[in-house]
Amino acid sequence: MFELIFKNMLRDKPIVHCITNFVTVNDCANIILSGGGSPTMAHHRGEVEEITEKSQSLVLNMGNVHEVDSMILAGKKSNELKHPVVIDPVGIGASKLRDETFAKLSQKIQFSVIRGNISEIKAVANRKGMTKGVDADETDMVTEDNLKQTVVMAKRLSEELRSVIAISGCIDIVADKEKAYVIHNGHPIMAKITGTGCMSTALIGAFCGGNPDNILEAAAAAVATMGVSGDIAFEKMKRFDGGTMMFRMFLIDSISNMTSEIINGGMNIEKI
Amino acid sequence: MFELIFKNMLRDKPIVHCITNFVTVNDCANIILSGGGSPTMAHHRGEVEEITEKSQSLVLNMGNVHEVDSMILAGKKSNELKHPVVIDPVGIGASKLRDETFAKLSQKIQFSVIRGNISEIKAVANRKGMTKGVDADETDMVTEDNLKQTVVMAKRLSEELRSVIAISGCIDIVADKEKAYVIHNGHPIMAKITGTGCMSTALIGAFCGGNPDNILEAAAAAVATMGVSGDIAFEKMKRFDGGTMMFRMFLIDSISNMTSEIINGGMNIEKI
Amino acid sequence: MFELIFKNMLRDKPIVHCITNFVTVNDCANIILSGGGSPTMAHHRGEVEEITEKSQSLVLNMGNVHEVDSMILAGKKSNELKHPVVIDPVGIGASKLRDETFAKLSQKIQFSVIRGNISEIKAVANRKGMTKGVDADETDMVTEDNLKQTVVMAKRLSEELRSVIAISGCIDIVADKEKAYVIHNGHPIMAKITGTGCMSTALIGAFCGGNPDNILEAAAAAVATMGVSGDIAFEKMKRFDGGTMMFRMFLIDSISNMTSEIINGGMNIEKI
Repeated sequence: MFELIFKNMLRDKPIVHCITNFVTVNDCANIILSGGGSPTMAHHRGEVEEITEKSQSLVLNMGNVHEVDSMILAGKKSNELKHPVVIDPVGIGASKLRDETFAKLSQKIQFSVIRGNISEIKAVANRKGMTKGVDADETDMVTEDNLKQTVVMAKRLSEELRSVIAISGCIDIVADKEKAYVIHNGHPIMAKITGTGCMSTALIGAFCGGNPDNILEAAAAAVATMGVSGDIAFEKMKRFDGGTMMFRMFLIDSISNMTSEIINGGMNIEKI
Repeated sequence: MFELIFKNMLRDKPIVHCITNFVTVNDCANIILSGGGSPTMAHHRGEVEEITEKSQSLVLNMGNVHEVDSMILAGKKSNELKHPVVIDPVGIGASKLRDETFAKLSQKIQFSVIRGNISEIKAVANRKGMTKGVDADETDMVTEDNLKQTVVMAKRLSEELRSVIAISGCIDIVADKEKAYVIHNGHPIMAKITGTGCMSTALIGAFCGGNPDNILEAAAAAVATMGVSGDIAFEKMKRFDGGTMMFRMFLIDSISNMTSEIINGGMNIEKI
Repeated sequence: MFELIFKNMLRDKPIVHCITNFVTVNDCANIILSGGGSPTMAHHRGEVEEITEKSQSLVLNMGNVHEVDSMILAGKKSNELKHPVVIDPVGIGASKLRDETFAKLSQKIQFSVIRGNISEIKAVANRKGMTKGVDADETDMVTEDNLKQTVVMAKRLSEELRSVIAISGCIDIVADKEKAYVIHNGHPIMAKITGTGCMSTALIGAFCGGNPDNILEAAAAAVATMGVSGDIAFEKMKRFDGGTMMFRMFLIDSISNMTSEIINGGMNIEKI
């Protein structure tokens, strides 16, 4: 299945329109390129609709709370054109502004994928009154112990919002209302560089742009690619006695050198 | 000739004022430093004139369409002071806003150098009604087949706009109305990282800042330096089994270690 | 003393709220992570107070002159909560806007630490009419010759402003009104990458966030950590035959691998 996802990416070289934050924008552009897509970071409200028309998918990153109008214009246009729209609700729960911004965006735009860490996805779920079972895990980490329960939450949330839900962490979950992929790749050092989450969202945007009819598998393939690349990058970093910045370099490098053989060999994924 | 260009750079350490986009601003600042210049990225309209007064050249990058007022203020002041002004018409042709922005800028500012890829330079030319011969190349690449014809176009456009024209691609062209340098260095991987174009423009700004009386040769030297550094970086990347981010590191690294011996040894350039 | 500083950092993992410029924001976030802190780069006026409330320290970087209102809101809130506030008066003296911005900020906010290069710190001092002795050094560098006199200036300025003063350069000085640490680590190549100053300020913010009752020593430890990491990074860069970008990678890498043994072994510091 994933082989087809990769093949489509390489064939289509999808243009991915990102309206994203200034902290990690360069990493996001580079990870899209490394995955075979073509990034465009236009965020001026005077052009985002036109740019989105020429793109294959849209990535909205709430780390940028200055450009909500642009996000709405681009998001509505993408919905019209049936382009995949991926949102990263960065920092939802951390301020009223973020919560209101997400509320506004989700009122106007139908998201194909919502990607966040478990705290962010819980904050999204809590908005829907889905508190029961959601706050059970006090450590806010997906572990083997709470995995099943989190998958149930993700599937319910997916059904409720009609979006694929991608939860990043030591264990990643990518779910629609019926199926969930659980991915055990990646390394804790990924939390020691800024932008791993944003990059993951950007890569999901690229994979969905090349596979608009297969959003769940495209999102899962992107998350698995990040994880496998994290594994490879950590090994390379150790070999060169490096640190977090060398890890970042090798993370994107590994994606730029990724083949379906490498990913199939390295992937630790289950479907539940 | 180029040796003098480098010598002037190292002697003058020109301050290069950039009003540029948030995607590649860090790379642009670093490439200017690596080439021996000193970058200042001030873009607030309340200070750009003062900053430009203390600089030796100005780089305007249309990837930032939010700061057009600042660009006009800085551009007019630079024209007054006879500082070189380099523009990168990023994305011209991709939206009405970009086209209008370029129109506005070119009405108010005399550019010393316009640098873009062939599509962008064609879009600039088309504005001038220079459509004939311009659209002949449907693949939008400079190749050996259309090289002569593209050089003719570049020279005519240079005459029309009184600006040096720099076209980036597999083959680079840097032309004024009479002479053109054709540069065969560089590697296709340069298109797999974000910002190669922006960095090239920034480096042209630095080289012109150190050589204000020799804009054509300064721009050609900057483009050749990018190309030779791309060649070196690709070889190094392969040696370390790296990917696109390692390539970016070695690209800027190579410029920071550049000598006129290395560049003369590596350069594949002809004057036509 | 410094061992306790590091221990507190690793224990507390302080959240560092930065309102900073778009050129080096990614480097600042990564250096905070590498030092054991947790960065948040929120700068929208609609949320900065809430974000600061959840943080342990605040870093204001005047390279961003667009967000002064946000800086004032966050700064006042941090003062209320007795969070350390670190300011980097980037470019003070380079434009009226910068001078006015610093004046406005310093009127409303009590800074715990002011970090800049010698020109910037002199510009801060000159505002206070402390011109005497300040401009003696025409080369604007701290050298062995003018070290004593600069330390006196730093101590007086610290007393005047009730802020720790950190001066970066070949020789670094970190002073309060009574004591000064003089740090001889670091390498001139640090001036050949953008953002060394900003990163140093960000790291001071992190160290102060973990050591709010020991601002002088926390700031000195951060500056020394930058210096020792610069020494290590330069040696590694030479070994791999690299340039400025490899240096930047190893600089942050070295901090991510820093231990109190390494820093104690490498530090060249005196207290005067």
